[in-house]
Amino acid sequence: MNSSYEVLGLATGIITSGESIAERVIETAEKTCGGFEEGDVLVLAETAVATSEGNIVRLDKIAPTPKAQELGDKYRIDPRMAEVVIQESDSIVGGIPGFLLCMKGGTLLPNAGVDASNAPPGCVTPLPADPDQSATSIRKTIEEKTGVRIGVIIADSRTHAMRLGCSGVAIGSSGIPSVINDQGRSDLFGRKLEVTKRAVADNIASAAELVMGEADECTPAAIIRGIGLPLGDHLGVETIDATECLFMGAFAKNRTQW
Amino acid sequence: MNSSYEVLGLATGIITSGESIAERVIETAEKTCGGFEEGDVLVLAETAVATSEGNIVRLDKIAPTPKAQELGDKYRIDPRMAEVVIQESDSIVGGIPGFLLCMKGGTLLPNAGVDASNAPPGCVTPLPADPDQSATSIRKTIEEKTGVRIGVIIADSRTHAMRLGCSGVAIGSSGIPSVINDQGRSDLFGRKLEVTKRAVADNIASAAELVMGEADECTPAAIIRGIGLPLGDHLGVETIDATECLFMGAFAKNRTQW
Repeated sequence: MNSSYEVLGLATGIITSGESIAERVIETAEKTCGGFEEGDVLVLAETAVATSEGNIVRLDKIAPTPKAQELGDKYRIDPRMAEVVIQESDSIVGGIPGFLLCMKGGTLLPNAGVDASNAPPGCVTPLPADPDQSATSIRKTIEEKTGVRIGVIIADSRTHAMRLGCSGVAIGSSGIPSVINDQGRSDLFGRKLEVTKRAVADNIASAAELVMGEADECTPAAIIRGIGLPLGDHLGVETIDATECLFMGAFAKNRTQW
Repeated sequence: MNSSYEVLGLATGIITSGESIAERVIETAEKTCGGFEEGDVLVLAETAVATSEGNIVRLDKIAPTPKAQELGDKYRIDPRMAEVVIQESDSIVGGIPGFLLCMKGGTLLPNAGVDASNAPPGCVTPLPADPDQSATSIRKTIEEKTGVRIGVIIADSRTHAMRLGCSGVAIGSSGIPSVINDQGRSDLFGRKLEVTKRAVADNIASAAELVMGEADECTPAAIIRGIGLPLGDHLGVETIDATECLFMGAFAKNRTQW
């Protein structure tokens, strides 16, 4: 990886259902920064990807189950929203007012990633059905049309334990590694590094979020230029098992107060 | 905030105990990118700051208590390291092999931030005693010597719940806001935003980590240039109460399996 890079926001305007996000991003990149370059990493907001894929749920078509009513009452969430969250989750592990904490595809996820902000009125957008596949499809289209190889990350904005505010997280990745293992490398004093895995895709999603914002900027995409990550047929964001997770291990299975 | 910015790694070499980190960073910035510019945000690895402040603990001087022995045995941690972690924590809330999960200053923190990597041999580095004060002191020195106003963030590298690999987190901040509140702004469709807080300091720490690395790059600092954050007498990284935290709320107080 290189010692410097640039982050360039792409103000595409609103992406509508069924529209090719790849085409819009290529046009905007040409206007913003002379088009894509070899090794660029494109970061896309998951809401924009879900919208372009038509993955939009109208709340007036949802009939909440008693379980959704109960969770909605308990955590002050629209029971129709709670119903969509239940349908999108593998399991619900808890909640606070306004949010259910869900497990989905091996990741802890507030409201299972179902988003009401930046969705059309009366609607919510679940996460893209297969974010890695979305990333690959967008990457291949851009690579074919521009002739350069790139990486694509689908990013979400999330809170972390005991942190105030949202930061960027990668939920889909294609063309670059999501985690880089420094195992075997040495620290400043020549010892083997203990903590050896770097979540580069999460860091890139966070770097991009600084120019993407969450309000009405209409900037659902950014290019990370010059970072020097290895390109290739990498697919997906590596996750861990709950038993390997310090937070899950501490709270869910093995809670001890010393 | 602007729609693009640059991230520039500063390869200062090893920072030693008692050395002025501000001076080293100014020298390195002059060589790397023509020196500091108004509005730059300097990100510093907490280990380098702790080392420069002489905040280094020699393990052969530590006598572990029975509690440290017990935690060390249970989680396969050097009991002397466990002792330092206990001393640095407000409370220990759990663990997995190799790590204790700690509360410290309102934040959940693996090993209370005590780091063995990149510390001198036989030593560990606790977090800087007051990271906000460290950030302010370094900021004032650089501002006096260069004549430009900057922000300073002290960054740590941490795992998050159910994520593989470490990403950057801000533990100290001075001169820029750590969280930006978008309350009152509208989403793409003109509705008030629901999730309104952006953890800009955490995002900046993550962006910087991509060029800082954790191995023997000797790059414990980076400049974020052109981001356009408001400058001023901002101090500290805003945190939340455990009762407001989705993760703590779900696991620690109110665990329910639906």
